[in-house]
Amino acid sequence: MTRFKLTLEYDGGPFVGWQRQDNGPSVQQALEEAIAAFSGETVTTFAAGRTDAGVHALGQVAHFDMARDFATDTVRDALNYHLKPAPVAVLRVDSVPAEFHARFSAIARVYRYRIANRRARLALDRGRAWLVQGPLDAAAMQAAAQVLVGHHDFTSFRASLYQSASPLKTLDLLEVTRIGEEIHVTARARSFLHHQVRNIVGTLKLVGDGKWTRDDVAAALAARDRGKAGPTAPAEGLYLTEVWY
Amino acid sequence: MTRFKLTLEYDGGPFVGWQRQDNGPSVQQALEEAIAAFSGETVTTFAAGRTDAGVHALGQVAHFDMARDFATDTVRDALNYHLKPAPVAVLRVDSVPAEFHARFSAIARVYRYRIANRRARLALDRGRAWLVQGPLDAAAMQAAAQVLVGHHDFTSFRASLYQSASPLKTLDLLEVTRIGEEIHVTARARSFLHHQVRNIVGTLKLVGDGKWTRDDVAAALAARDRGKAGPTAPAEGLYLTEVWY
Repeated sequence: MTRFKLTLEYDGGPFVGWQRQDNGPSVQQALEEAIAAFSGETVTTFAAGRTDAGVHALGQVAHFDMARDFATDTVRDALNYHLKPAPVAVLRVDSVPAEFHARFSAIARVYRYRIANRRARLALDRGRAWLVQGPLDAAAMQAAAQVLVGHHDFTSFRASLYQSASPLKTLDLLEVTRIGEEIHVTARARSFLHHQVRNIVGTLKLVGDGKWTRDDVAAALAARDRGKAGPTAPAEGLYLTEVWY
Repeated sequence: MTRFKLTLEYDGGPFVGWQRQDNGPSVQQALEEAIAAFSGETVTTFAAGRTDAGVHALGQVAHFDMARDFATDTVRDALNYHLKPAPVAVLRVDSVPAEFHARFSAIARVYRYRIANRRARLALDRGRAWLVQGPLDAAAMQAAAQVLVGHHDFTSFRASLYQSASPLKTLDLLEVTRIGEEIHVTARARSFLHHQVRNIVGTLKLVGDGKWTRDDVAAALAARDRGKAGPTAPAEGLYLTEVWY
């Protein structure tokens, strides 16, 4: 039995998300079918982050076990071959100890959110960024973002339908930077609540617009009420960029 | 009569190229239809570079005349509205003197070619870069590229089917840079021959591979024979990035 760790890139656009679901194609299904086509083995894959429909990955990590052993380069090339034409690429394959778990061994996840801040619609980045046509003040967004860094009850920033786990999370980094006509919001934490990054971005956008202040963000956090924070930013701007172990 | 200058971004993937053709949708047609939908006027648009099928633009420039006058922001927003869902965006509109001609007034065109130099197939950049899976030596490519800079007979680097104009061109800049797993080839000239950038990139790739030397590139240029240079790099990696006036 060999445990393989995969580093994955994907375009979330055509998928219902990472996780297998009845209502459409998932990244997990595409990957498990490619593994079966290559090895003949039916496996279950586990991912570091169960990205939602439309969310992209530049460095998602997943693991699975195979009865047979293969060279890691063989696994990478075979999976890339069998994944065609799905927009999923295996960037790297490592053989890992049986104790490694893509989800539970992760010590940090890094997400990046891309906002295209320009008047014109997107031609080349359609489905790859959130288009915000009015001017945004990235410096104000960065200042307000610092209110959210640290250990907090993030109830105001989590999807209201998902209430099972604890709303207490530690946000290690939340950085807003402007690069020309783009604004990038980078968030790092051991783990995130469902929709947490998108709800934070939707709230920071209100600050960028000038509608909200840094104090409004602090008040929204303190309220512990999803209704008090800003709307959920669209999935298409979000990228799972890195997972740390 | 008002002459408008447009700065355009587009995804070349779904188009037969800039120019109207009988065999499929062109950027020119999409743009002229959007102008007609907005203004009721049937116009002809002229572009700085007649990009081929699959070639993208980040800063194509075109012009057209309208009988009625409109504020430039109105033209930009109306065209962006009517261009939907074509992957063409109007970044900017300027009102220009009647002497301005997008093609003939241009003093330089800048193209960038993106090579994705990695083993794994492309998920997010499918159709946006040329995937070269073997390692490329960007420094060797940059050194060899300098052989082509200057005023030369570029017969060896132009599409063999198009022999009307002079093969003498002045290449002002040809720069190869590596950015992580990407290699960018930037080329600037007053004007280019058909397929010139793609044929140069296809040749420099042979240098990056270690199959050719800088001297081989010099010999190919001196031969004035298309058969002596490298193959044509795929359209999907090429971007018209800027036009100077």
